[in-house]
Amino acid sequence: MTTNKKLIGVDLGGTTIKFSILTADGEVQQKWSQETNVLSEGNFIIPDIIESINHHLDLYKMSADEFIGIGMGTPGGVNRKEGSVSGAFNLNWNENHKVFPVRDITEGTGIKTYLENDANVAALGEKWKGAGNNSDNVVFVTLGTGVGGGVILNGKLVTGIAGGAGEIGHITVDPKGYDCNCGKKGCLETVASATGIVRVARDLAEEYSGDSKLKSMLDDGEDISAKDVYDLAKVDDVLALKVVDKVSMYLGLALGNVANTLNPEFIVVGGGVSAAGDFLLEHINEYFLKYTFPLVKETTKLKLATLGNGAGVIGAASLVIEGE
Amino acid sequence: MTTNKKLIGVDLGGTTIKFSILTADGEVQQKWSQETNVLSEGNFIIPDIIESINHHLDLYKMSADEFIGIGMGTPGGVNRKEGSVSGAFNLNWNENHKVFPVRDITEGTGIKTYLENDANVAALGEKWKGAGNNSDNVVFVTLGTGVGGGVILNGKLVTGIAGGAGEIGHITVDPKGYDCNCGKKGCLETVASATGIVRVARDLAEEYSGDSKLKSMLDDGEDISAKDVYDLAKVDDVLALKVVDKVSMYLGLALGNVANTLNPEFIVVGGGVSAAGDFLLEHINEYFLKYTFPLVKETTKLKLATLGNGAGVIGAASLVIEGE
Repeated sequence: MTTNKKLIGVDLGGTTIKFSILTADGEVQQKWSQETNVLSEGNFIIPDIIESINHHLDLYKMSADEFIGIGMGTPGGVNRKEGSVSGAFNLNWNENHKVFPVRDITEGTGIKTYLENDANVAALGEKWKGAGNNSDNVVFVTLGTGVGGGVILNGKLVTGIAGGAGEIGHITVDPKGYDCNCGKKGCLETVASATGIVRVARDLAEEYSGDSKLKSMLDDGEDISAKDVYDLAKVDDVLALKVVDKVSMYLGLALGNVANTLNPEFIVVGGGVSAAGDFLLEHINEYFLKYTFPLVKETTKLKLATLGNGAGVIGAASLVIEGE
Repeated sequence: MTTNKKLIGVDLGGTTIKFSILTADGEVQQKWSQETNVLSEGNFIIPDIIESINHHLDLYKMSADEFIGIGMGTPGGVNRKEGSVSGAFNLNWNENHKVFPVRDITEGTGIKTYLENDANVAALGEKWKGAGNNSDNVVFVTLGTGVGGGVILNGKLVTGIAGGAGEIGHITVDPKGYDCNCGKKGCLETVASATGIVRVARDLAEEYSGDSKLKSMLDDGEDISAKDVYDLAKVDDVLALKVVDKVSMYLGLALGNVANTLNPEFIVVGGGVSAAGDFLLEHINEYFLKYTFPLVKETTKLKLATLGNGAGVIGAASLVIEGE
């Protein structure tokens, strides 16, 4: 898109709201952030966003007509038709408290606004300016408190018939596995989220009796994190390696099956757990190669995300380009 | 598309080539078929197709300029850029014998030609004029000699980066399962194709000692088919019901995970095995509901294919519309 007009990206999270002003080519020119005020059923959030944008445009001596649009990523379920959000519990926007950011922010700033789910905008960000290398076929999976994802095929975000697409965390990897918050059993999220990895560690520790720092820590009742598991595995702690192997098997299976179905160019792995880096990726890849058929094995590549927390604002801004 | 111009659909198979002339709205106006001549490394096939089309246009007193295009479905791997086919072993087109139907048929008939893999065109057919109800988000799975499929999202066929998308038959459903022709283990195809179902029956028969006609047939060395298994299950043969349950579990798991990732409006089940009808679908659906998370469970529906063998020509013709 050749234009001097700019984009605004907003990444609305449960603790922070991040803002960026970007060129139409996705170059970040300004950024700022503020705390999310979830008091009063989250009623301050949208007015705060509007005020913050208007205030910063004043500060930078910019006007609404210098922008193509605003794109925002949000937790919860997005109804694209209505431009509404529901069920964003960490913002205190519950089912009975539907919010209409598209209408409100468009009116409040005079800039056309676009909205999408936060995992999907992170996927769009990594696709556009991150590990996805602007390929038309990218799947993104985020390993954090939960496991989320986004699917981009033929250059377009896939939302499915009801916005449920991309929920890679709810792929069933073990029909007899742990109960998931979603109501079913053995979801990828129950074993590959930060808490899932710790759960697997606790279970494997029970049946393990050899020498292991991880085992001692667990037996001593220490609070361990997914990072501890990966750090110990990197220094060859036997139990930690077993945990990493099991988690990687589940991730390789789920991502392998996504690849068998969609043959994307890249599957990008992000989120807090991905800080474990190449070590994490190599272990997943071992199983990924085992569970993919030849053509897919040769052509679909796993990669680490490169934008970190910045993927959200950039992907949110790209909604504007997609929408135009 | 409002035009009086017409489409030609060609479904090239290992034994028969099917042809149809359709309106731009997908109404079949003429159809014919002929045997596939696979002699001489399949060198007759493309000239035969050209001759057959030209001959029939003469017969119907139609000329090339009355057509928008020809769409063809083919076995093997399709290179969309080159308009070529490779590795279609049942046509005797092997790796060293690449075929360029798009160039050849376009030149031979004077009508612009489009090409796609046979499972993908069947998916397009069911999407456009069959159970897919022309939805923009349809996944098709065909249970026949093998298990194949096609994925349509945001109204577009998904081919992936190298044409490997839609290979639902190679989703790993049991990492410790049977060896598959593709080189890996536990693919859906090894348990849910016509031969896969018989394989499951033989295995379960070994550990089953109760009363069962299916068990007797197998013990007597009779050749049984997937149809026998479903027919016996319908009359409450205990072993046959166990086989159907196991196959349905694998299908429910694979299709459930496709739905968790893509949230299509419909997953359409076709192919020879789907002749078992609602009985087949209900058993799959039981597990599908178990393995999908709430939003997907409520919004993605399993359906039986409605076009049978006719899906291929209709879907092939739709390539022309998509291509224009």
